[in-house]
Amino acid sequence: MAVLNLEDAVSTYGRLLGAELEHRETLESQGIEAVSVLVGEDRVELLTSLGEDTPVGRFLAKRGPGMHHVAYQVDDLGAELEALAGEGFELIDHEPRPGLYGLQIAFVHPDAVYGVLTELVAHG
Amino acid sequence: MAVLNLEDAVSTYGRLLGAELEHRETLESQGIEAVSVLVGEDRVELLTSLGEDTPVGRFLAKRGPGMHHVAYQVDDLGAELEALAGEGFELIDHEPRPGLYGLQIAFVHPDAVYGVLTELVAHG
Repeated sequence: MAVLNLEDAVSTYGRLLGAELEHRETLESQGIEAVSVLVGEDRVELLTSLGEDTPVGRFLAKRGPGMHHVAYQVDDLGAELEALAGEGFELIDHEPRPGLYGLQIAFVHPDAVYGVLTELVAHG
Repeated sequence: MAVLNLEDAVSTYGRLLGAELEHRETLESQGIEAVSVLVGEDRVELLTSLGEDTPVGRFLAKRGPGMHHVAYQVDDLGAELEALAGEGFELIDHEPRPGLYGLQIAFVHPDAVYGVLTELVAHG
């Protein structure tokens, strides 16, 4: 979820869903600051941008706060990407790359998933 | 996820994530046809509209396919709504109402959740 203010969002998700703060991390290379909160067994990631000329900064400027992407956990990210490429899925990342919290991540292009930016995540 | 063609979307989510078809239901009163698929222990709902002059029809016309809302399961939906109203959350539904698949549902206004249309769901 792309938001303007992480502190406000963490507080709101706590009151709304009993969400508990898990991680907080700044990823300068991606221009984002992120907090993950746990809602039951699922994780909601609250993202904000470090500047306007970043992917999340442009998203916020264009659309305002809202849902940015959805992530699914997989066991073997490299094998999954290879299989998806073989099936003709348009990938943004053809190889796993480091994401937040020490995870390995890769994005599938939203054009391949009906407008939904889709992230695949695996433990490193 | 709002999509234009449910069959295509079910096939794609199956190939992408191994998603398994769970339910399929038409809700004439809401102008939607929906399919739920299971991804691990989580459920992804694929929605399409029965016409342009429906909430999902207007969403698709304005933005195209994409993420429409997110839902979280709660134990006691009535108590949850009362608590949220007491905390000042702007609610679309102040009382639980019947949703798809026999579930009780209520929506929290996106203005209260940083632009994210948020649904609370409970077993009836």
